[in-house]
Amino acid sequence: MKAFPHRHLLGIEPLEASDIQTILDTADGLKEVLDRPIKKVPALRGKTVVNLFYEASTRTRSSFEIAQKVLSADSLSIATATSSVTKGETLLDTAKNLEAMNPDMIVIRHQASGAPHFLARHCRSAIVNAGDGAHEHPTQALLDALTLRQKKGRLKGLRVAIVGDLLHSRVARSNLWLLAKMGAQVVLCAPPTLVPAGIEALAPVTYSIDEAVEGADAIMMLRIQLERMGGGFFPSLREYHKRFGLTLERVRRAKKDVVILHPGPMNRGVEIASEVADGPDSEILDQVTNGVAVRMAVLYLLLGGGRE
Amino acid sequence: MKAFPHRHLLGIEPLEASDIQTILDTADGLKEVLDRPIKKVPALRGKTVVNLFYEASTRTRSSFEIAQKVLSADSLSIATATSSVTKGETLLDTAKNLEAMNPDMIVIRHQASGAPHFLARHCRSAIVNAGDGAHEHPTQALLDALTLRQKKGRLKGLRVAIVGDLLHSRVARSNLWLLAKMGAQVVLCAPPTLVPAGIEALAPVTYSIDEAVEGADAIMMLRIQLERMGGGFFPSLREYHKRFGLTLERVRRAKKDVVILHPGPMNRGVEIASEVADGPDSEILDQVTNGVAVRMAVLYLLLGGGRE
Amino acid sequence: MKAFPHRHLLGIEPLEASDIQTILDTADGLKEVLDRPIKKVPALRGKTVVNLFYEASTRTRSSFEIAQKVLSADSLSIATATSSVTKGETLLDTAKNLEAMNPDMIVIRHQASGAPHFLARHCRSAIVNAGDGAHEHPTQALLDALTLRQKKGRLKGLRVAIVGDLLHSRVARSNLWLLAKMGAQVVLCAPPTLVPAGIEALAPVTYSIDEAVEGADAIMMLRIQLERMGGGFFPSLREYHKRFGLTLERVRRAKKDVVILHPGPMNRGVEIASEVADGPDSEILDQVTNGVAVRMAVLYLLLGGGRE
Repeated sequence: MKAFPHRHLLGIEPLEASDIQTILDTADGLKEVLDRPIKKVPALRGKTVVNLFYEASTRTRSSFEIAQKVLSADSLSIATATSSVTKGETLLDTAKNLEAMNPDMIVIRHQASGAPHFLARHCRSAIVNAGDGAHEHPTQALLDALTLRQKKGRLKGLRVAIVGDLLHSRVARSNLWLLAKMGAQVVLCAPPTLVPAGIEALAPVTYSIDEAVEGADAIMMLRIQLERMGGGFFPSLREYHKRFGLTLERVRRAKKDVVILHPGPMNRGVEIASEVADGPDSEILDQVTNGVAVRMAVLYLLLGGGRE
Repeated sequence: MKAFPHRHLLGIEPLEASDIQTILDTADGLKEVLDRPIKKVPALRGKTVVNLFYEASTRTRSSFEIAQKVLSADSLSIATATSSVTKGETLLDTAKNLEAMNPDMIVIRHQASGAPHFLARHCRSAIVNAGDGAHEHPTQALLDALTLRQKKGRLKGLRVAIVGDLLHSRVARSNLWLLAKMGAQVVLCAPPTLVPAGIEALAPVTYSIDEAVEGADAIMMLRIQLERMGGGFFPSLREYHKRFGLTLERVRRAKKDVVILHPGPMNRGVEIASEVADGPDSEILDQVTNGVAVRMAVLYLLLGGGRE
Repeated sequence: MKAFPHRHLLGIEPLEASDIQTILDTADGLKEVLDRPIKKVPALRGKTVVNLFYEASTRTRSSFEIAQKVLSADSLSIATATSSVTKGETLLDTAKNLEAMNPDMIVIRHQASGAPHFLARHCRSAIVNAGDGAHEHPTQALLDALTLRQKKGRLKGLRVAIVGDLLHSRVARSNLWLLAKMGAQVVLCAPPTLVPAGIEALAPVTYSIDEAVEGADAIMMLRIQLERMGGGFFPSLREYHKRFGLTLERVRRAKKDVVILHPGPMNRGVEIASEVADGPDSEILDQVTNGVAVRMAVLYLLLGGGRE
């Protein structure tokens, strides 16, 4: 395996297609460890990872923690609810202090776009972006890509519809970069109030989900982040479902073997109908398993597990 | 050791007397590990356990976590305070997602009766009930039984008084099942407002604690759950203590070598007098140690430690 | 290495100079483990440590947890936010219950002075004080001393200024004891409202920071605990900075190779100017690294790692 040429994983944007390929290949290779009766390899024994979460997240944090345990790394998780952040310390001071405890990696989720890049400029530890504001969520895009590639055998040339709240979604942004780099063809779909300005420069945008999913190889549904929806971006959840929800009827417009993805947690009956979420085309739970595999790959590549 | 015939531990009710015997025997065998200078055996190395707690609980969660560490299992603890539960995900979706990360076991505490059974129907992982609503708390009943058996040499034929808030107590319910299956003779005692309808079909009920403890081999005190006592179930704590509190005088009505149990945390001066809690008949701290041993046994039996 | 003659670390006050020396020497020896590619030694394998934190603290808790992982101890962290403390249990009952799970050590932070001493009288486990009220914070004083000794080669005869909120600071108190025992010469400085009664018996007090830092070998800045400053101890933060903040100009009054310490988290622009915090004399991040080393030493000495 060739060495990975990056010290950090800050986003998909700075990666080459070959880097993405390396991560996905490594994830494919490591995934079988998760099926063993003894799910543990000593690859990262004695390495320390700090998971620094400024936003609550069961699934991303759990996925990273499990990846760390499977690879035998030591990990320390800090959630802001119980941290000195409440004592008014700056992000940089918190990071510098953590770093002074000599961790090999800091995995950070932060509400501000660019927070991981800021740490990468000022810290010696490897930095992994676990979601920064509305900017990027690279491991999510990587696990989506891994799932797609496993089902379709390739990413190049696939027609992928990304549907939902494009405005607040770091998942959409990372997936857009990744799919473009890997040669897939993306169509975006959202209500006009949830389309960020200028995004049509990156991929075509439609306000019709029927149009977006027409002939699609894959449909990536985005979560309606109810907790950020104070602003009246659409009239009601029922209305949203009617206009933009993924129903069985709409799935039928896509290719026959369409792959349906959702980053979770799902709002059933809002952005996705339960029949679709639990249906035969849904790979939503495979995404979760692949999430652990992709995070194992990122840990392994950045912490030099391959060099020993 | 013969194989344990269950995949889950959902409650005491579905167990045979022989299953209970197997768990207690295994706990007795594993308990000595806790007295070693190096409290660690590799029995469950590479097994992953998720502790999913929808209700706060220091002692049960700590006890499970210590049992997991002693047996070298990897564990991940999720408390709802920092989880996606707040994002409106259903219990099933949360569980399915956790399961997709391939844990071998999910230990769940939930405010709804039947939540563990629901998971067992829908997940492949082994499910352990760490307390579901007012329904069951099987590991508590098992540790109570282990403590009783260690002190008395048997369970069969013992006369056991269970005193306190029978209405809200999953501990009482699990103990009732267990003691009945093992041939002990139970007397229940509570204020009339805290007796659930129909329970007299399972064991005799008295409103007099003096009557209940008369000649008892063991007295199991239940916690007054002050946080659920909005409804005016009794006039005052002082009144409760006077009528239903376990005092030294009342202990004297029991057999000479009576064993006194309490699941903790205790309300001293309410359901139990401090002189009793700290007195020579109290096995309350032994219960805690036995709690770790019983949870080690459950982990070991369900995760197939014995088969390797 | 000679055996450490204490079972607990309750404070600096009960230690002899030779005990402090032993801890610092051990910390110096263990520190190199933190620079290894594989930061893990099996010294405390199979030992269990409970971290019982009644006050939130990222840095102290993280530092203890990392020290535990590096030495291969199993650890369990309990923060009151998710613990039965909310169910009204006494500290003693909580501790007794934890102890019944057979941990080898309890590390406790508590808002009440003397809480660790209380546990030490009633529990068999080794007790480490991780900060009790405004009383002591011994591992902080030890890491300060380790940092000073590394830079200056000695503690004896050093002139050390301790500046800031002396009234609420357990750090100041522990450092006062330690520096006095090791033969350093301390000058205290604070606004009159933040000087505890009678402290001038232990070291000279001045209200002028310029006077305090004059010719100092080291300056220990104390954190203004904004969250406790409801009482109007000084007119404003700006006023505090002007009168008692450590600025570059004031640093120039100290010796040329002065060492500047701060326990963190810092209030930049209040008790310390950013140019000083990030300047060449600041050893603030070294303190953090030394914090892990000192806690490794304490764990190692108290848990008898040396005897195997």
